[in-house]
Amino acid sequence: MSSFSRLVRFLAKDGKTYYGDALVPSGANDLTRVAQAKVIQGTPWGQHQVTERVADVQKLLAPLAREDIRTVRCLGLNYEQHAIESNMPIPKYPVLFYKPVTSVTGPFDKIPVCAAAQEGEGLDYECELVAVIGKEGTNIKESQALSYVAGYAVGNDVSHRDWQLKRGGGQWGLGKGFDAWAPFGPAIVSTKLIPDPQNLRITTKVNGKTVQDSNTGDMIFGIAKTISILSQGTTLLPGDLIFTGTPQGVGMGRKPQVWLKDGDVVEVNLEGVGSCINQVGFEKTKARL
Amino acid sequence: MSSFSRLVRFLAKDGKTYYGDALVPSGANDLTRVAQAKVIQGTPWGQHQVTERVADVQKLLAPLAREDIRTVRCLGLNYEQHAIESNMPIPKYPVLFYKPVTSVTGPFDKIPVCAAAQEGEGLDYECELVAVIGKEGTNIKESQALSYVAGYAVGNDVSHRDWQLKRGGGQWGLGKGFDAWAPFGPAIVSTKLIPDPQNLRITTKVNGKTVQDSNTGDMIFGIAKTISILSQGTTLLPGDLIFTGTPQGVGMGRKPQVWLKDGDVVEVNLEGVGSCINQVGFEKTKARL
Repeated sequence: MSSFSRLVRFLAKDGKTYYGDALVPSGANDLTRVAQAKVIQGTPWGQHQVTERVADVQKLLAPLAREDIRTVRCLGLNYEQHAIESNMPIPKYPVLFYKPVTSVTGPFDKIPVCAAAQEGEGLDYECELVAVIGKEGTNIKESQALSYVAGYAVGNDVSHRDWQLKRGGGQWGLGKGFDAWAPFGPAIVSTKLIPDPQNLRITTKVNGKTVQDSNTGDMIFGIAKTISILSQGTTLLPGDLIFTGTPQGVGMGRKPQVWLKDGDVVEVNLEGVGSCINQVGFEKTKARL
Repeated sequence: MSSFSRLVRFLAKDGKTYYGDALVPSGANDLTRVAQAKVIQGTPWGQHQVTERVADVQKLLAPLAREDIRTVRCLGLNYEQHAIESNMPIPKYPVLFYKPVTSVTGPFDKIPVCAAAQEGEGLDYECELVAVIGKEGTNIKESQALSYVAGYAVGNDVSHRDWQLKRGGGQWGLGKGFDAWAPFGPAIVSTKLIPDPQNLRITTKVNGKTVQDSNTGDMIFGIAKTISILSQGTTLLPGDLIFTGTPQGVGMGRKPQVWLKDGDVVEVNLEGVGSCINQVGFEKTKARL
């Protein structure tokens, strides 16, 4: 399906933006600092071709342009130890919510915190494996599900606990949907290179200190099972992102609780993929509520 | 902003699909049975032009093509009497959730009910005013908010109460996101023609019997207020849909409760806009859970 191995989108040193297939030293499995990529002509879900032209990377962007992303689905409480730290029951079905496409941002972009999100408390990180759908499908069998995945990235489901849990009437839409609250990247690594996505270390560091350190094997609903359930009567499209939940160690689950502050640097890392490293930036606008 | 008065998308008698500006007899304010439209060249959010060419309508489709829709936002419990019938507190902030773009369907299309959604009980209708964003904006002032709206349509936020309330871990994603569970249309009527969207009768009939009959004046968060709050730190894009909540009279709120069955015909109507008339169709696939 996908002709690329490690899909990146980047601002090149020539000032232009390209899709590319990242060039990495043989054996390297961290795409955080990609220096060069083979330019891709076309777009990932349309006609495209990996060319032999090599471009120098100035900055990695979100690996998909906004117009190439469709629906952003997210799972809550999908790691057993995280459900426990959240004082929530182990879910029987996936806990499904959504983020708007405007929440997507690049692996090294700022996480802006608007005035409304500076109210109350609870600014928090969530490292997550992001499965990127590459092929349209409905009622997908679990045994076939991974063939609908183009590849995997790491993402941060940035959350504001007061807006999420106390101000949303129980729905998580308000506390998780702000602009650029879903950094993801640094690349979409093809399923060819990650044959077993359920055995990857996944971590978060805040200002260099490790705060989440788990393994995708702790997922309650694995990626194939998740795709099978979410596709029941529901068509998944190329460019759909599925944030598959976060392990234990979020700020909300710590004793005492710890919240992100202006200027904090959050790094989420997935084994075989690399890191998103994003700095929190409080904005000086005024809330109107 | 919008050059059209009543945006429709339709299969024409010549077998092609067009955007158009509906032609209606002078003084008509129901677009359910549009017979002709002036063809629009281009797409609603890009360069486009209403031409003088008139085409005959065979069937109205969802007024926006999938690729011209971005994020579908929905409000829960946004009519005071509905919050009361749902035994829920009057919300202090909008209760925000999302539907995937694949849930959107046309005003006269079938509402398919997959095997999973035939489990348990609680298939329900929700008539809603749909505000269609026509201009990009962030941190929009309430006083300016309606200038970001291209127009209004009526929609049906089809819901499955067991999946929504009992199987989703509290999140409504699973119970509201199935394919074609968000019929909307029949047209997007320009704000020019609806100066006061907070005084429109809104109704639902099931098999011809009126089950919801209210007025958009009962909204807790009016459209302008909703847009102002939802745009805090969040960019709204042309092609975003906002389903603004349903009034009292849903099947869940009736005594005894009444659920939609295979073959039922649901008509949601908004004054000045017209109706979506959709038949429920149970599918014969097998659930895999």
